[in-house]
Amino acid sequence: MTLTAPVTADAAILHFPQPYLLFLGDVTEPGYAKTAFGLRDWARDQCVGELSCSPDAVSVGLPRFTPAEAKARGARSMLIGVANQGGRILDSWLPSLIEALEVGLDLVSGMHTKLSSTPALVATAERYNRRLIDIRTPPRDIPIASGRKRTGKRLLAVGTDCALGKKYTALAIAKALRQRGVAADFRATGQTGIMIAGSGMPMDAVISDFEAGAAELLSPDAAPDHWDIIEGQGSLFHPAYAAVSLGLLHGSQPDVIVVCHEPGRTHMLGHSHYEVPSIEDAIDLNLRLGRRTNPAVRCAGVSLNTSKLSPLEAERLIAAESARLGLPVADPIRGGEPFERLLDACLAEKSR
Amino acid sequence: MTLTAPVTADAAILHFPQPYLLFLGDVTEPGYAKTAFGLRDWARDQCVGELSCSPDAVSVGLPRFTPAEAKARGARSMLIGVANQGGRILDSWLPSLIEALEVGLDLVSGMHTKLSSTPALVATAERYNRRLIDIRTPPRDIPIASGRKRTGKRLLAVGTDCALGKKYTALAIAKALRQRGVAADFRATGQTGIMIAGSGMPMDAVISDFEAGAAELLSPDAAPDHWDIIEGQGSLFHPAYAAVSLGLLHGSQPDVIVVCHEPGRTHMLGHSHYEVPSIEDAIDLNLRLGRRTNPAVRCAGVSLNTSKLSPLEAERLIAAESARLGLPVADPIRGGEPFERLLDACLAEKSR
Repeated sequence: MTLTAPVTADAAILHFPQPYLLFLGDVTEPGYAKTAFGLRDWARDQCVGELSCSPDAVSVGLPRFTPAEAKARGARSMLIGVANQGGRILDSWLPSLIEALEVGLDLVSGMHTKLSSTPALVATAERYNRRLIDIRTPPRDIPIASGRKRTGKRLLAVGTDCALGKKYTALAIAKALRQRGVAADFRATGQTGIMIAGSGMPMDAVISDFEAGAAELLSPDAAPDHWDIIEGQGSLFHPAYAAVSLGLLHGSQPDVIVVCHEPGRTHMLGHSHYEVPSIEDAIDLNLRLGRRTNPAVRCAGVSLNTSKLSPLEAERLIAAESARLGLPVADPIRGGEPFERLLDACLAEKSR
Repeated sequence: MTLTAPVTADAAILHFPQPYLLFLGDVTEPGYAKTAFGLRDWARDQCVGELSCSPDAVSVGLPRFTPAEAKARGARSMLIGVANQGGRILDSWLPSLIEALEVGLDLVSGMHTKLSSTPALVATAERYNRRLIDIRTPPRDIPIASGRKRTGKRLLAVGTDCALGKKYTALAIAKALRQRGVAADFRATGQTGIMIAGSGMPMDAVISDFEAGAAELLSPDAAPDHWDIIEGQGSLFHPAYAAVSLGLLHGSQPDVIVVCHEPGRTHMLGHSHYEVPSIEDAIDLNLRLGRRTNPAVRCAGVSLNTSKLSPLEAERLIAAESARLGLPVADPIRGGEPFERLLDACLAEKSR
């Protein structure tokens, strides 16, 4: 039995058994169910239904199934779609988790507490020959980065800070490119992204020496007109996480960056004594460092997270920022003409 | 019994039992005994003697002792001072390693193969209540970096590439500052450095999310006039290791950087399709990124590794580079007037 995710020779990144039954535990606060909502919104066809273990628990609006019912409808794993303070697997969840293993579902979790360090789950998984998949565990045998330029096109969503829309920007761009008939894959680098994509690389859990190598592994050689749309992590300006961002930037070798920003955010998340950099500084520093592994890297434009603004406020800000920066600016979640222009700029060949 | 290095509340960095008996195995090629030579040169008073398990093995010129003799002369551990292709602990070494444990010495190793994954050693260590200390294993519970400015002064030796003298530059500066009566500690970030110092943080083995936090842990708050002289790792320009370098730079919050370079090296070690950056570019990029966590960071000068040059060639090059860059330039191993000027510049208050 494999307790960690498998490593295959052709693609040594994490792959997960989809579709999922989403487990909501006894979480009553929607903010703690962000993963489940993200999966519903971005991987609806990979979500068979939902299950909670309390009548008061939050719902993401999917059909409610027992593990056995979900299995009968094609589910291959049950995924813990909620978080809590400390990231712990609660005793009250265990009966549901064990039931899922017993009926033939694997378990997928991004919690801090590992499934594989929970004895009751390990024993049941062994008995029923099921897998316990901890998303925070990177694959083994990640190589040192070679720095060799790979074939195919790559876009990396970078940010002025953490947690401001890099994942959804990358997801929206990948989806829109496919709708235009472009061969494009979303490449996940964080837990929720990996759960949505069903594969990926947990970049923040990789040992530093192998960080750029992990990014190289995540987006291998591809057809010349294929695009990997890579979820960014952290920010080069973040006093704690810049190492993750730089390893990902170097290893991704992006042809194009899109800089993600949340208007109105003035200080770094969790580090209020650090100001958020300007969009211009973020563009400049990402291009300067990105040129080391891809001299042709360019910035296609800016993704603004305008979720706190009214539609009219958002429209005005997007137009003003685009004029100020001389670049396409859009909120990919709102879409529309600005987003189409941003996509055009992503696909445009570099004019040097 | 603790199989990994201890974590104490006041300083959660690795600490090792000194002095050492240096173990040379059956290595005949001096290049594979770099660690032992480095310890002899930089931590002579922490080396009781040497031991090999073959009459043809290399010697570093220390007295030859059995483990029991070394123990009687105060040794607290036997340290594997050699490397080999693959970093493996050879079967032919086991009798000596086991003998050391039996007479009361701990074992210290920086090999890829962990002491703690070698069953014969684990069994003996348990039986004799000895520690197996794998230097590549970072301490547990490294915090996320806070970015909070710490008290005391810090110098970081950065580089245009890997393996060109950052460790010896930091060691030489720390030693020379102490000779001037300045309170200064060498802070080790790589295996050999950690063995020399007897403590430190294996930065390349830390999980990326905690990289800057590990650097913060390594050089805690200190007296206002105390200097931590921090060994750099990798290079911001290295396509594989820049993440390590940036996390270390951000977490170190250096007041002063010294840029280390090897004249004549044109391409990055192990990555011959990447050119070594200019010294000016290395200064500029390190200062730009370093300002994020210490806006007052400045470059005191340049350390040149002139080991491949004659004394006269070295003297001429150092003078020419100093004139060209308008900065103190020295080879700390050669010392002399240029090195004194570099030290003066390190200690000078910033004039803004």
